[in-house]
Amino acid sequence: MSLPRTAIIGGRGKLGAAFAGLFEKAGCEVLIADHETELTPRQACAQADITIFSVPISVTPAVINEVAPAARPGSLLADLTSIKLPAMEALARSAPDGVEILGLHPLFGPQVVSHMAEQVIAVCPLKTGPRAEWLSNFLVQNGAHLKKTTPQEHDEMMAVIQGITHFSAIASGLALKKLGVDLEKTLAFASPIYELRLAMIGRILGQSPQLYAEIQIENPSTAVAVKAYKQAIDELSQTVDSSDEQAFQTIFREAADYLGSFKERASQMTDHVIDSMAAFDGTSETEK
Amino acid sequence: MSLPRTAIIGGRGKLGAAFAGLFEKAGCEVLIADHETELTPRQACAQADITIFSVPISVTPAVINEVAPAARPGSLLADLTSIKLPAMEALARSAPDGVEILGLHPLFGPQVVSHMAEQVIAVCPLKTGPRAEWLSNFLVQNGAHLKKTTPQEHDEMMAVIQGITHFSAIASGLALKKLGVDLEKTLAFASPIYELRLAMIGRILGQSPQLYAEIQIENPSTAVAVKAYKQAIDELSQTVDSSDEQAFQTIFREAADYLGSFKERASQMTDHVIDSMAAFDGTSETEK
Repeated sequence: MSLPRTAIIGGRGKLGAAFAGLFEKAGCEVLIADHETELTPRQACAQADITIFSVPISVTPAVINEVAPAARPGSLLADLTSIKLPAMEALARSAPDGVEILGLHPLFGPQVVSHMAEQVIAVCPLKTGPRAEWLSNFLVQNGAHLKKTTPQEHDEMMAVIQGITHFSAIASGLALKKLGVDLEKTLAFASPIYELRLAMIGRILGQSPQLYAEIQIENPSTAVAVKAYKQAIDELSQTVDSSDEQAFQTIFREAADYLGSFKERASQMTDHVIDSMAAFDGTSETEK
Repeated sequence: MSLPRTAIIGGRGKLGAAFAGLFEKAGCEVLIADHETELTPRQACAQADITIFSVPISVTPAVINEVAPAARPGSLLADLTSIKLPAMEALARSAPDGVEILGLHPLFGPQVVSHMAEQVIAVCPLKTGPRAEWLSNFLVQNGAHLKKTTPQEHDEMMAVIQGITHFSAIASGLALKKLGVDLEKTLAFASPIYELRLAMIGRILGQSPQLYAEIQIENPSTAVAVKAYKQAIDELSQTVDSSDEQAFQTIFREAADYLGSFKERASQMTDHVIDSMAAFDGTSETEK
């Protein structure tokens, strides 16, 4: 099969542009459609062998509904959205007969697209054929690890993987602000785990408020996960408020038991990471 | 000055034993006193040039009150406790005249003591002299970075550095249990940040429930920090519950602004860490 002509709807966004670069590097013709391009999303889709939607979560279903009907039989519609159920429903509803459908969610940011060795892309194969097979192979050849799933399972997983992780980090940043903490001063006293945690908080808060709001709010499973986290916070803070060390230890053991043998691997992995942070500090020291 | 004879009160605990090893390696005579040693803590203290208390936070003041009066003039009393105010008050109250006092808090675990390059030890110098100077130099020569502080400042810093960090990790572990999440399954879909977060949660939950309960509950500043965290959680979850993306973004930006230029460094540091995790996975792969 000749190289597919690929349309990226939202191709001027960071993630869309990164994927456009990947296809161009492979020699594909790439059509970029975005708010202010002369080429409209529908025109791009109508001319493409593969159309990839890379637009904000909240508008993804509407953009798909508008654009997907233009797809040619034998072409493929795919999307990169972080929440799969509404996007896949829109694709299923709007794609003409004979059009392939493949949902994709890269579990990493735009900066990783060019070197995605071992990084996960969740894949929802809805209607597959030669184009979907080509695209899957292309992603694997570029280093991605494809993890097959359903839209439902994906969204439930993301409520945990992204929902609680982001939520607790954003809340931690807000708590530091509320306390009026001097960050530089805390870093002078930092344990490696605090330094690492603050770096994760900073990484998340350095990204798009809109993307993070949408990941929290547009995925119905996230509200369930956040509710469980809030309950856990309430139970644990109750033990601190009442100075009940035994109750605190009981909750601690409950959570520790749940993690089981993963704790040992976690300890080894974080030892490795802490060593690597010392090397990072060393490098930046000589760069000053 | 000849090498000091050093007594470790709680020398059979993990941290005490690690420091005992450090002094022995340097050629010091080390007296170990613990619950079941023939040598009592008072006897050890009475014979030592340097006595180091390494006992659980909750009993530290009582042990100091009992043991410190046995110290000889010209000797040094030090402690390794994670909360400094009660320990330093007990040392100030119980140490005989002419005894030096140095509060220490290594911001790392027992496994790091033998190679503490660049790792921080918080130091509260209360009554210094030649022994305190020798001990400070000894720790620096072994790679530690000494950060001078007061007991009050130390405890306020630790409420943030340890208090919120541990609290949010333990609560995250509990939330995953409440949700009945299959950890292995989530790891198959994991973003690098989730994998790192889960590793941090696992590292913390792999440690002593008693130590972590004491760090939360015996430090009065921690309750204040945890309260701020709980408020942040409440505010943020309110925006998720009401699907108010604008309000979520406002809180996100507030926290992001507070972190200021640290976000850029955080992003670089976590990129570095994520690369190092791939190397760790690679290693463990070949070890299988």
